[in-house]
Amino acid sequence: MNISMIGTGSFGTSLAMVLDSNHHNVLMYGRNNQTIDEINNNHSNKKYLKDIELTESIRATNDLKEAVTHGDLLVLAVPVKAMRSVSKEINKLLNNLDKKVLICHVAKGLELGSHKRVSEVIIEEIDEKNYTDIAILSGPSHAEEVSLKQPTTVSTASINKTGQKEIQDVFINKYFRVYENNDLIGVEVGGALKNIIALAIGVLDGLGFGDNTKSAVITRGLHEIARLGTKVGANPLTFMGLTGVGDLIVTAMSEHSRNFRCGRMLASGQSLDEIIENMGMVVEGVNTTKAAYELSQIHNVDMPITNVLYKYLFESISEKDALFSLMMRERKSETEELVDIMRNHLEMEK
Amino acid sequence: MNISMIGTGSFGTSLAMVLDSNHHNVLMYGRNNQTIDEINNNHSNKKYLKDIELTESIRATNDLKEAVTHGDLLVLAVPVKAMRSVSKEINKLLNNLDKKVLICHVAKGLELGSHKRVSEVIIEEIDEKNYTDIAILSGPSHAEEVSLKQPTTVSTASINKTGQKEIQDVFINKYFRVYENNDLIGVEVGGALKNIIALAIGVLDGLGFGDNTKSAVITRGLHEIARLGTKVGANPLTFMGLTGVGDLIVTAMSEHSRNFRCGRMLASGQSLDEIIENMGMVVEGVNTTKAAYELSQIHNVDMPITNVLYKYLFESISEKDALFSLMMRERKSETEELVDIMRNHLEMEK
Repeated sequence: MNISMIGTGSFGTSLAMVLDSNHHNVLMYGRNNQTIDEINNNHSNKKYLKDIELTESIRATNDLKEAVTHGDLLVLAVPVKAMRSVSKEINKLLNNLDKKVLICHVAKGLELGSHKRVSEVIIEEIDEKNYTDIAILSGPSHAEEVSLKQPTTVSTASINKTGQKEIQDVFINKYFRVYENNDLIGVEVGGALKNIIALAIGVLDGLGFGDNTKSAVITRGLHEIARLGTKVGANPLTFMGLTGVGDLIVTAMSEHSRNFRCGRMLASGQSLDEIIENMGMVVEGVNTTKAAYELSQIHNVDMPITNVLYKYLFESISEKDALFSLMMRERKSETEELVDIMRNHLEMEK
Repeated sequence: MNISMIGTGSFGTSLAMVLDSNHHNVLMYGRNNQTIDEINNNHSNKKYLKDIELTESIRATNDLKEAVTHGDLLVLAVPVKAMRSVSKEINKLLNNLDKKVLICHVAKGLELGSHKRVSEVIIEEIDEKNYTDIAILSGPSHAEEVSLKQPTTVSTASINKTGQKEIQDVFINKYFRVYENNDLIGVEVGGALKNIIALAIGVLDGLGFGDNTKSAVITRGLHEIARLGTKVGANPLTFMGLTGVGDLIVTAMSEHSRNFRCGRMLASGQSLDEIIENMGMVVEGVNTTKAAYELSQIHNVDMPITNVLYKYLFESISEKDALFSLMMRERKSETEELVDIMRNHLEMEK
C-alpha cells in the first residue's frame, strides 16, 4: 500500500519503520528540510530517535502535495495544535486531486479552546467526500521501543468501523500488535487525558514522593479520566484496557515519557517555557490539562488532580499554594483527601 | 488501644510505627530472639528496615501468650504459609484467656493446597466466640515508604463490616490514609494475585523487555485477576481501585517489590531456591502462582500469564520452552497473542 506519514517526529518515524517492515511504500512528510535531507541521505532521524537506522526504502519530502498524491492512507502524526491547519491543507489538496483516502491520526490530546477530540477536528476540516474513514491508533507505545521492535500492543478505532480493520491489517506484525476497539471516544479520551496524570506524577516524583503516593494518584487519575470520559460518551470499560490503564502506566512510570519528565523539571523550579524550549518536542499534557480543566467545568465533573495541576501550571502559584487552596474546599472524595495528605507531607518536610 | 503486632517483618514493623505514632500501645511478637532484642534495646529492625529508628514505646516479645494477653486488636503480619498455624496457637490462647479480640491480617496471597483466602483460613482456625470481626488491610504500601511516612493509601474490609470501621479509626493519620471497602473478597484476591503479575513482569524485565511490553502484560494481568476474582465472588469494580490496579502498579513497576526482584533474578538464571535463600524474605507470588493456577483449573478460568509463569516456576522448563508450549494452543485472546509475540521477540534476539 502507498502510505504517507504526515510528520517526522519520534512516533511518526517509529511507525514509518513498522509500515516499511510490513512492505508498504512509505513516504514521510515534514517541514524541516534538514530532517528531510537526513532521512533521505543518512537514513536516520537523530533528533528524535538517536540510535536507529532507517531502511533506504523510507523516503521523505517537504512537499505536502507530493505526500497527499502518494498516499492511499495518510497517517497524521503531528501535534494536536497543528492538526486543524494540517487537515485544512490536506483537504484542499484532496479536493484538487479529486481523491479519496483513509485517514489515521496518532495524536494524544484535546484541542485548546474547542476542547475537541482530534478526530472531531479532522472531521470538521476534511470534506466527507475526501475520506473513506477516519481512524485512531493509540496505546502504550513509546516510540523509542517501537523503533527497537520491542513487543508493543495498541488499539485502533474508527468512525465508520471499516477503517479500523484496514489500519489493523496495515500495521500488524510480529512485534506490533494491533487490536480493534469499537469505542472511538474512549480510545481518544484515554490517550489524551493520561498525559495530565503523567505530568502530575512527574511533579510528585520531582518533589520526592514515593511509589505508594504515585500509585495512589495514578489509581485516582484513572477514575478521573473515566469520570470525564463517560460524560462525553466513552464506554467506561475502555479505560480498563490498553488505551486506558495500559497507556497510563507506561506514561506515568517511565523515563521515556516527555510529560513525566516535564513534570519533574517543573518541580525542580524550571519554568514551563524554559522546559518546552529545551525539550524541543511538544508536551501534549500541558494544553490538554487546560482543555480538560475547562471541559470538566462545562460538564460539572469532579477532577481534583486536573484542577490542582491546572492551577500549578497556569495560575503561577507554587505547588504548595495550589495544594493549600484545596484545603478551603469541602472534603468530598478520596482524591481530595490525597491532595490534602500531600500538603501535609510538604509541610512535614519543611 | 492495646494492639499486638504478630510478626516483626518489614510491613508489620512499618505498621507498628503507624500505630505507635497514633498513640496506641503497641507490642510486637516474633520468634527470632535477636530481632526481639534489637527492637527492645536498639530500637531498630535493620534486617527489614535498614534506616529507621523505632520509638522506645514500641516493645517486642517472643512470648505469644504475652502478645495475645496484651492486645484488644491483633494484627497478623505473618507470611500466608504461617497463617494457619499462628491462628491455631492464638485460638488456644484466646480460649484459655476467655477473651474476645478484633483480628486484622495484612498478608497477600492464597494458601497452598486449599487455595483459600487468608481470612477464610483464619475463620477456620479461630472460634467465632473469640473475635468480634476479622478484617484485612491492603493496598499500594511498600513498607520502606510507610516507615518513612510517605503519603500512602490503603483499603480495609471485614467480614462483619464493624471491624473495618475500627481498623480505619485505629490506623488512619495524616500520611497513612485508610478507606473502607465493602468487598472483602475483591480486596483479598486483588492483593494476592497482583504478586503473580509482578513476578511475571520481573521475568520480562530480566529478559530485556521494555515498558511497552510490560504495560501490556500489566493491563492483561489486571483482566486475568478480575476474571478469577469475579468467579470467586469479588465485585469487578474493586480491581479498578487501590487494592487492584493501584497495588498492581506499585508491585510490578517498583524496585522495592520482592516479587518483581525475584522474577528478575529468575530471568538471570538463578534457581528459585537460591533466590529465596538469598532474599531471606518470603516471596508470596511463588506459592500464590501455584494456588491460582490450580484455582483457575477448578473454575475453568482463562489465565494465560499465570499458566506460563506456573510452567516456568514449577515444571522446570525454560521460559523459551514455556512460551513455545503456548504455540500449540489455539489462539483465543489478546493475552495469548501477547505471549506469542514475546516468543517471537526471543527468537529474533537469538
